[in-house]
Amino acid sequence: MRVIKTVKELKEFVRTEKKAGHQIGLVPTMGFLHEGHLTLANQARQENDTVIMSIFVNPLQFGPNEDFDRYPRNLERDEQLAASAGVDCLFTPDVEEMYPEPSIITMTVTARADKLCGVKRPGHFDGVVTVVTKLFHLAEPDKAYFGLKDAQQFAVIDGLVTSLNFPVEIVGVETVREEDGLAKSSRNVYLTEEERLKAPHLQKGLQLGVQAAKQGDKSVEEVIERTVSYLQDHTGAAIDYVELLSYPELDSLEKVQGKMILAAAVQYRKARLIDNIIFTVRGEC
Amino acid sequence: MRVIKTVKELKEFVRTEKKAGHQIGLVPTMGFLHEGHLTLANQARQENDTVIMSIFVNPLQFGPNEDFDRYPRNLERDEQLAASAGVDCLFTPDVEEMYPEPSIITMTVTARADKLCGVKRPGHFDGVVTVVTKLFHLAEPDKAYFGLKDAQQFAVIDGLVTSLNFPVEIVGVETVREEDGLAKSSRNVYLTEEERLKAPHLQKGLQLGVQAAKQGDKSVEEVIERTVSYLQDHTGAAIDYVELLSYPELDSLEKVQGKMILAAAVQYRKARLIDNIIFTVRGEC
Repeated sequence: MRVIKTVKELKEFVRTEKKAGHQIGLVPTMGFLHEGHLTLANQARQENDTVIMSIFVNPLQFGPNEDFDRYPRNLERDEQLAASAGVDCLFTPDVEEMYPEPSIITMTVTARADKLCGVKRPGHFDGVVTVVTKLFHLAEPDKAYFGLKDAQQFAVIDGLVTSLNFPVEIVGVETVREEDGLAKSSRNVYLTEEERLKAPHLQKGLQLGVQAAKQGDKSVEEVIERTVSYLQDHTGAAIDYVELLSYPELDSLEKVQGKMILAAAVQYRKARLIDNIIFTVRGEC
Repeated sequence: MRVIKTVKELKEFVRTEKKAGHQIGLVPTMGFLHEGHLTLANQARQENDTVIMSIFVNPLQFGPNEDFDRYPRNLERDEQLAASAGVDCLFTPDVEEMYPEPSIITMTVTARADKLCGVKRPGHFDGVVTVVTKLFHLAEPDKAYFGLKDAQQFAVIDGLVTSLNFPVEIVGVETVREEDGLAKSSRNVYLTEEERLKAPHLQKGLQLGVQAAKQGDKSVEEVIERTVSYLQDHTGAAIDYVELLSYPELDSLEKVQGKMILAAAVQYRKARLIDNIIFTVRGEC
């Protein structure tokens, strides 16, 4: 596996691969790899000739009071894990390499961003689409892989690709979970022992909500209330939001129908966890 | 020459060319082709295996009081001219094809746009970078060709490519002129006979200004005054602006030094004309 730190070297690597007629799969990450990331890499490995993984903690998508500085990093371990997952090229630029001079272009997400995590993270998705645009231009992937745990991120990137005609197929990969159902996340390391025991209830509450939604006689409000009530009773965390929206448009719903996402975020002492279920309810004909 | 009207067909065309290992040159235009455009096409023909020309009058870059509706169009003639210039694929989408649904991304130009033509055309360059981004993603060119008559546009696109790491080399092509020095422009057809006779003085005034700048003892203000005074006396048009700025950054100058642009816009009854000279004055060591 090649480890590349500069834009110049990455462009040369990509040019060589393209000339050889190789199809490129890109797995953009912020590092501190866990099984979720490796599942993305494995799928990319199966579907492409060349797999590029990027590790870049993107300052542009962190707010001033967020955890950019203390976001967990372990590049040495990441390199071993990426190599073992069959990654051909690990791109690990520093901030100066990705943002060498002030950009003359600002990208703003005007839909799908003002819901869910976007409410408390103004500008977050503007930072996401900017770095994804840069990574797409640098790695020129045929396919790019994103986890569906960050379902809003996937919806926004889906809209980015469609709106600006990127020649990239984006692939959403199912959330990888611990045995007890907790979604894998780099931020799980911040949970206390007690919090870790209760955290799987986040997914359980969402499953209950989806069950209610599929019964067919519940309103949007009833589905949300059912979920909120379970999360309050079992997670031991403060609820940030529980929302039921259309997917991937993330529009508000008048009734429980079509392709939807039930998503929640809860706040533990040092870790904010998110999870979701994307599901479909057919309406009456 | 293939004439393609849909995004789907263009993507298929590009995919085939890429698979064959062909280098692609793109010439983005708004049509009503003149010798300036054909010079771009000729250069693209010499430097690439495959030449794609786009013709698209982009509504996003016209202000509400600008000439989108009456911008001159003549697709039949354009097809003949493009074919004769060696274009392989003429992409002529309609507005619905380029903007099929509301975009979830807004692109804003935060530098190089608030000078020269940008002052009176707020949002103009936002529209330019958006359509150029879409065309770059659709045609996937190795090189893209732009005329230096629109020097500010070239500077903005240069900044777009650098800021977002587009894998495209942009090529600026010298302005093509009538025998009397008037820059070729689709908008020249709106000049009256009398205006047409006086219009070449736009370039003459700029030449005088550059001459003054190169003497080495003139201030920025003196260079501009010299130019303004000539244009006032000879063009018979209202002066919109005369500016001397660094190039391509388009920053204000404290003294006449380095790579610069002397640019002017003048308003005739039905036609607004722009022209410029890009030149370098070495400072003292």
